[in-house]
Amino acid sequence: MIQQKEITLPGFRRGYHLITRTIEAELPNLPDAGLLHILVKHTSAGITLNENADPSVRQDFEGFINVMIPENHRVYTHTCEGSDDMPAHLKSSVIGAEITIPITRGRLNLGTWQGIYFCEFRDYGGSRRLVLTVYS
Amino acid sequence: MIQQKEITLPGFRRGYHLITRTIEAELPNLPDAGLLHILVKHTSAGITLNENADPSVRQDFEGFINVMIPENHRVYTHTCEGSDDMPAHLKSSVIGAEITIPITRGRLNLGTWQGIYFCEFRDYGGSRRLVLTVYS
Amino acid sequence: MIQQKEITLPGFRRGYHLITRTIEAELPNLPDAGLLHILVKHTSAGITLNENADPSVRQDFEGFINVMIPENHRVYTHTCEGSDDMPAHLKSSVIGAEITIPITRGRLNLGTWQGIYFCEFRDYGGSRRLVLTVYS
Repeated sequence: MIQQKEITLPGFRRGYHLITRTIEAELPNLPDAGLLHILVKHTSAGITLNENADPSVRQDFEGFINVMIPENHRVYTHTCEGSDDMPAHLKSSVIGAEITIPITRGRLNLGTWQGIYFCEFRDYGGSRRLVLTVYS
Repeated sequence: MIQQKEITLPGFRRGYHLITRTIEAELPNLPDAGLLHILVKHTSAGITLNENADPSVRQDFEGFINVMIPENHRVYTHTCEGSDDMPAHLKSSVIGAEITIPITRGRLNLGTWQGIYFCEFRDYGGSRRLVLTVYS
Repeated sequence: MIQQKEITLPGFRRGYHLITRTIEAELPNLPDAGLLHILVKHTSAGITLNENADPSVRQDFEGFINVMIPENHRVYTHTCEGSDDMPAHLKSSVIGAEITIPITRGRLNLGTWQGIYFCEFRDYGGSRRLVLTVYS
């Protein structure tokens, strides 16, 4: 069985944000067993699984990914939408814009330390649309 | 219900190529709701979602990812298949070789600016095989 | 139909390890057509598809990804769990901690040269939990 829902996230500041509880709250009736797929409908944001505890991990994601994929690189030609735009496109494909998570006994079956990160790569990304698909 | 199909892409030049319409043309009867999974059956190519409009984004993907994962790096030992081979393997795992896309009301439910990129990381990759799986 | 199973991998040394046969052995009765989803329940390990033949490819993954995402970078603030910890979190999101693989005629439908890599990013990661979900 397929259940689908589109949701809107509020505008987050640039960086990495834990949204596990937001997603769970949108899906109060998860099946006993299945999978949840999440798509971010944008090309300058991303979604990934990572540590849900120490905020310094999310801070270092922002710090280091900006080193790995910097603004104003000499090879960029797509510069008309601001210095944060082309790096945001690259980060979206390197981190990814969709994930699948198993559902077991009516809950997201993540590891103890795993949470869902929404990754806002633009300085002012505004609200963002996600498609949630549950199949069971 | 599961529907599966293998398709062959023609040899693309090294770079990032929009294949959204090719994929849609291969799947004329999408279900009302479901998911599409695409696997690239190769270890030196990839697939990702990114901007479907300005070609300069795809040009900058080729430019920048070659900076991030260069040819002829001093640490490479797997050099027997050409200088473009080991970077192609690395890019395939960093960008990814499979994606899942939601299907809603009989269409791929992507964002307005999202398209499917086929990523050819070899200089002469030749034709490439993909597995398309639709579940509904 | 959904089938789910959790498995434990033994402690692997830091690096990239082919686990295709391990996964196949855990799933002796694959359906005729479907998909397999694999989640690594950890934030300092990963899973990806790449070359299943020459071990030098896996060696160069370890060599190069350590250059791309180094230890002891000046921007890291999350340093309390050892110099290999923060890079491991970053690698887990760049490589990814979950994949989906098509199943065709009762077998994983991978390319001839594709295998499943389990990626241990910690020096001493210990045993690791995976969730396998087969849907058909």
